[in-house]
Amino acid sequence: MQIAWEKKCFGGVQGVYRHASSATGTEMQFSVFVPPGPGMSTRHPVVTFLSGLTCTEENFTLKAGAQRWAAELGLVVVAPDTSPRGLDLPGEHEASDFGSGAGFYVDATRAPWSAHYRMFTYVTEELPALIADAFPVETERWGIMGHSMGGHGALVAALRRPERFGSVSAFAPIANPSDVPWGRKALSGYLGDDPETWRAWDASRLIEDGARVPHILVDQGTDDPFLAEQLRPDALRAACDGTGQPLELRMQPGYDHSYFTIATFIGAHLSYHAARL
Amino acid sequence: MQIAWEKKCFGGVQGVYRHASSATGTEMQFSVFVPPGPGMSTRHPVVTFLSGLTCTEENFTLKAGAQRWAAELGLVVVAPDTSPRGLDLPGEHEASDFGSGAGFYVDATRAPWSAHYRMFTYVTEELPALIADAFPVETERWGIMGHSMGGHGALVAALRRPERFGSVSAFAPIANPSDVPWGRKALSGYLGDDPETWRAWDASRLIEDGARVPHILVDQGTDDPFLAEQLRPDALRAACDGTGQPLELRMQPGYDHSYFTIATFIGAHLSYHAARL
Repeated sequence: MQIAWEKKCFGGVQGVYRHASSATGTEMQFSVFVPPGPGMSTRHPVVTFLSGLTCTEENFTLKAGAQRWAAELGLVVVAPDTSPRGLDLPGEHEASDFGSGAGFYVDATRAPWSAHYRMFTYVTEELPALIADAFPVETERWGIMGHSMGGHGALVAALRRPERFGSVSAFAPIANPSDVPWGRKALSGYLGDDPETWRAWDASRLIEDGARVPHILVDQGTDDPFLAEQLRPDALRAACDGTGQPLELRMQPGYDHSYFTIATFIGAHLSYHAARL
Repeated sequence: MQIAWEKKCFGGVQGVYRHASSATGTEMQFSVFVPPGPGMSTRHPVVTFLSGLTCTEENFTLKAGAQRWAAELGLVVVAPDTSPRGLDLPGEHEASDFGSGAGFYVDATRAPWSAHYRMFTYVTEELPALIADAFPVETERWGIMGHSMGGHGALVAALRRPERFGSVSAFAPIANPSDVPWGRKALSGYLGDDPETWRAWDASRLIEDGARVPHILVDQGTDDPFLAEQLRPDALRAACDGTGQPLELRMQPGYDHSYFTIATFIGAHLSYHAARL
């Protein structure tokens, strides 16, 4: 693991790091904030933040204002990139909603994506192991959250790996990808055309099929232009209501899909994770 | 004035606006955050933030996390661009420290810059008048702050216009531009080669020459790579000590020149302005 850069921030250290990933077969970059403390001797609970379409690890790191809250709450915050980089697969860089910047946090099974687009294994296995080795974290206290495509990723990660992630929240998640244009394009592209194979990568379907976590927190802006067509929190609500999965879905009047919404509510989400971990 | 965009943030509204500027003879863009409140009927004190080299109004708006504090404190925060745009003067776009993105908040007297590079008039006269017309502000309670080149701009603006700006603070200001490479290049380029004409645009010289404000707050990171060669808070300290100008200069151990430093201390600066206005 190499340090791309480290900077002092709110008394802690915000850094960006790179390493050769076995999950993706590429070099990967991620950011970590470590709150103030006496180095590796004090370990902290961790929250992973998964970003949305077109993002790298940088967007959240620069725009969300998470460090201020993580410093107060004593949380390590990890933000990975959204796809492998440095490849040139056919069509990989042609669209904002598939390929580079749009890994959808699945393990692809369809060639040529299956060789590299294994973001689920990356964010749920490889990256946590790397973080646990190199940073002062309590590996048993690990939460996950995300925005849009990353909100989908966080919900799926927690529902599929509840033993690893003890808390989960999302901003404007793609809550039912099987039934929306972004999700159908990604899931068919990475997994093939059989919708049955998509169920394990769709939070609403996973809940219908019996997956459970202790609680889910979702904030969704009412002025989000993707709300009705792409995000579908109503489907998540229906799946939770139908199965008894606890969900707090907060419709936030006037807020949109931007990082200004994330910045507004990131403190509440980090407090939520700190209280539940 | 046109709205480029407006987004809800921390219960208030963050927007970016554009207008035809008479000071610069170009279209100018600026950002404004208005804290939560019942529209134009509740007026708020204002702080203008001046950005550094290469920035537009966007850097501060996206990266500083000011909205969270401004919402709490009930402050309007205004962030202008750092130079005229859309021109193609000889050499204007060749360097990061002169021309576009580097207006240095002076009124240029040297051709061809003198026709457009009138950022001092813009930020101290034209923009405040425009803001007072269009936003719910208390025009008698106006503070100014900035970073690096913008820290220089804020100090000079307050020292030259103490009747307009009731409070001033800076992050890592270019505190003695007459005596550093960035400043000499800019001041000679915009004003000509006589250093006597530069004194009115150099905070340390202005203080030596008798300009006064009630108090100055400066935060400066000790790990700032520009500290010794370009910023020179020691010169500002000497000028203040020699004249009785009140100054709180806080050397912040381990912090650098980045927006992570600004984000860390922006809350303290906005609180400082709110208390003094």
